[in-house]
Amino acid sequence: MSESDIDLPPGAAPAEADRLHDADDRLRPEYVRRVMAHVEAGETESARALVEPLHPADIADLFELVDSDERRALAAALEEVLGGEVLAEMNEHVRDELIDTFEPHEVAEVAGEMETDDAVAMIEDMEEDEQRAVLRALDPDDRAAIEEALTYPLESAGRLMQRDLIAVPEHWTIGQVIDYLRAGAELTTDFWEVFVVDGRHHPVGTCMLSWILRTPRHVAVADVMKREQTLIPVDMDQEEVALRFQKYALISAAVVDGSGRLVGMITVDDIVHIIQEEASEDVLLLSGAGEGDINEPVRESYKSRVRWLIANLATALVAASIIHMFEDTISRMVVLAALMPIVTGVGGNAGTQTLAVTVRALATNQLTQSNTWRAIAREIRVACLNGLTVALLLGVGVAVFLDNSLLGMVIAAAMLTNILIAGLAGVMVPLALDRARADPAVASSIFVTMVTDSIGFLLFLGLATASGLVT
Amino acid sequence: MSESDIDLPPGAAPAEADRLHDADDRLRPEYVRRVMAHVEAGETESARALVEPLHPADIADLFELVDSDERRALAAALEEVLGGEVLAEMNEHVRDELIDTFEPHEVAEVAGEMETDDAVAMIEDMEEDEQRAVLRALDPDDRAAIEEALTYPLESAGRLMQRDLIAVPEHWTIGQVIDYLRAGAELTTDFWEVFVVDGRHHPVGTCMLSWILRTPRHVAVADVMKREQTLIPVDMDQEEVALRFQKYALISAAVVDGSGRLVGMITVDDIVHIIQEEASEDVLLLSGAGEGDINEPVRESYKSRVRWLIANLATALVAASIIHMFEDTISRMVVLAALMPIVTGVGGNAGTQTLAVTVRALATNQLTQSNTWRAIAREIRVACLNGLTVALLLGVGVAVFLDNSLLGMVIAAAMLTNILIAGLAGVMVPLALDRARADPAVASSIFVTMVTDSIGFLLFLGLATASGLVT
Repeated sequence: MSESDIDLPPGAAPAEADRLHDADDRLRPEYVRRVMAHVEAGETESARALVEPLHPADIADLFELVDSDERRALAAALEEVLGGEVLAEMNEHVRDELIDTFEPHEVAEVAGEMETDDAVAMIEDMEEDEQRAVLRALDPDDRAAIEEALTYPLESAGRLMQRDLIAVPEHWTIGQVIDYLRAGAELTTDFWEVFVVDGRHHPVGTCMLSWILRTPRHVAVADVMKREQTLIPVDMDQEEVALRFQKYALISAAVVDGSGRLVGMITVDDIVHIIQEEASEDVLLLSGAGEGDINEPVRESYKSRVRWLIANLATALVAASIIHMFEDTISRMVVLAALMPIVTGVGGNAGTQTLAVTVRALATNQLTQSNTWRAIAREIRVACLNGLTVALLLGVGVAVFLDNSLLGMVIAAAMLTNILIAGLAGVMVPLALDRARADPAVASSIFVTMVTDSIGFLLFLGLATASGLVT
Repeated sequence: MSESDIDLPPGAAPAEADRLHDADDRLRPEYVRRVMAHVEAGETESARALVEPLHPADIADLFELVDSDERRALAAALEEVLGGEVLAEMNEHVRDELIDTFEPHEVAEVAGEMETDDAVAMIEDMEEDEQRAVLRALDPDDRAAIEEALTYPLESAGRLMQRDLIAVPEHWTIGQVIDYLRAGAELTTDFWEVFVVDGRHHPVGTCMLSWILRTPRHVAVADVMKREQTLIPVDMDQEEVALRFQKYALISAAVVDGSGRLVGMITVDDIVHIIQEEASEDVLLLSGAGEGDINEPVRESYKSRVRWLIANLATALVAASIIHMFEDTISRMVVLAALMPIVTGVGGNAGTQTLAVTVRALATNQLTQSNTWRAIAREIRVACLNGLTVALLLGVGVAVFLDNSLLGMVIAAAMLTNILIAGLAGVMVPLALDRARADPAVASSIFVTMVTDSIGFLLFLGLATASGLVT
């Protein structure tokens, strides 16, 4: 197998593949430029021929990669391939921008091609009157399904689920199930598991299709199915749904309403991007970068980030006011001003490390009441080791190079204490927020930085004053 | 449906469930304590009865939740339920600690119960002589499969794949496939798709089981199968594998060797935890928290974190030496010492925001050569808006409260420039590292913090000196 084979995009011949994707399966810039050159020259046919071999996910990427003002021309040229599958894969900001240029009946047309969950994701953010116009243009079945989904809370299982699923009664044999699947012309064709229900339409088990194919016809489906199953309540938050899929390695799961009736199913392919989103959102939340999508409009990014920077400004003022209290000390020994940011900088970093570990453990349900104290004790031990090492290095360095051993001792003591406090704050603040049912990723880092900054300056300048270092 | 139903753990009756899991599907602390009380009292039967209804993933959680010194007693009491399935779900640090107490034949016994990929994950970190002893104790088939997997690089597709799969020749009809599946007693029972291969055993398509069940017997499998398929080279890195599964919404994928032959398959349930890991590792890497697992031994956490703190100490010394250059200025206007950390602190935060957004976009393949300049331009625009807002607030505040408009102008100019530089560094540094094929999440934040700290102090103190503010 040649190198180029390895990057084989679905549906493309190996020779061509080479020119479409790079080693990381991203569309090559040369390819993107070639498509746009055809679009700009009005060579619609050539552009379409270039794009046709792509997977819908790659066509969606193509739209994301070109500039915002090129997208409308690209959409016009690719009208025939720009269907529901492509729009379902597209970044929501890019998609919203694109469908803003569509007529309601055009939106309804692509929504009709989509699975319910994707159609809901596309139209849930529209203005109410536009949304109504789209719904009116849909065919009655699709409309009913989407309208029902829209009655569930945002980001809930009800919005993620598909209604097309296979459910069979528990008293059937494998033979009956096979005959039903092979005969029922109106049944869905894409499914991974069959749900077994009782007389009240409550799910009682699931059956992998491979078990159905490998079991003699006379066996009862109830004897083959797996009885232990994870039922997803229709109003469960998508983050919780994602955690269940991960924990129990699910391929599909039954969604039940308040009375326990089977109302839909969620499949893992709709969940993988949620797992990815939820896992990577912590890094954005910790830094106050909001949604942090590179396709987000500048105005939105500004709004979410500046709020955070202003909060940061406020905490920096607290730290400044602490330094202000010690201006007399600094004026008498101005090298303190040069040294003090070391104590707060390294302390802040130690706090962020503990914070990152704690937030992640909380998000993955690894940190619960049962092991809280152990986790805190663990962070204190790591903080002691880190603090002793860094304080020793810094203290000896300052004592030797500035030829002042008392100053070395003062900065070492401040550094050690600040790293200990950083470790404590880094684990306690997110735990406290989590206990208060707040998202620990959102507000923790502002608190922890404030603590390490304020206490760092206070410790260092306070010790310098109290130790008689400054005369 | 009652509240308790919602938390129904697989296999437990609703009444019992209430006492096992909390609303977030985590084991309740009361339940964990109850199990340990039985274990400590030597009531093995009662402990086992309590644990038996749990899903293997929950039994694994139980081991993670109890203290390190309680785990051996728990393992002894639960010997019968502590099988391959439970160990496969367990945190690797906890598992390594546990299997250290096992004899090689005991490890071989659980490895034999596991799928190849899980067995490999368990024994790949063992000492070489222990690993050899375990391999010798395995039955020849399992041993050959595991030994072959161990020849592939760590974290590669070859280590993740299962060898048990269903492959059928492309000239078969659906009827032949069904008969083969129903007759072949030695075939695996758990699979989601059938791979179609040509005469050289190269995969040419995949077929969902539901299509096989819904298609007439006389149709050729080649007419039903999906030809566009994502082939995973056996040496592909697991992060890449995870990205393909996400992008193309795969349930299972064929793994091929260097000559294009089908050698195994990877299923999505083995990938979801990798998606989660890879997505959440950025937050840990950006803060220098290493692997960041709360079950990691303290010594390991210390080693990875202190290295980072020492690097941070070095960059803080650079910033300190810049302040040192301006000690004369500070001694003549000591309020500068109180104000200067504001410029660097808020600047550092602005840099971290841009960094988080850029690192995430790179990790998810959203940011490629095609849209690099657009992303940079976008970050500069956000930085301008953020910089103007924060600089205005800070400048006016300082001018009014310290009654010094020149100082207000100086700090506003320094703040604006530092936020602009932070934005530039936050997007350029990770892009440069990525272009150099280095992991942008690992080293970026040290660089960016050094830039915002050094330049922040230089700008503020330099402007204060040059503007004639200090006399």
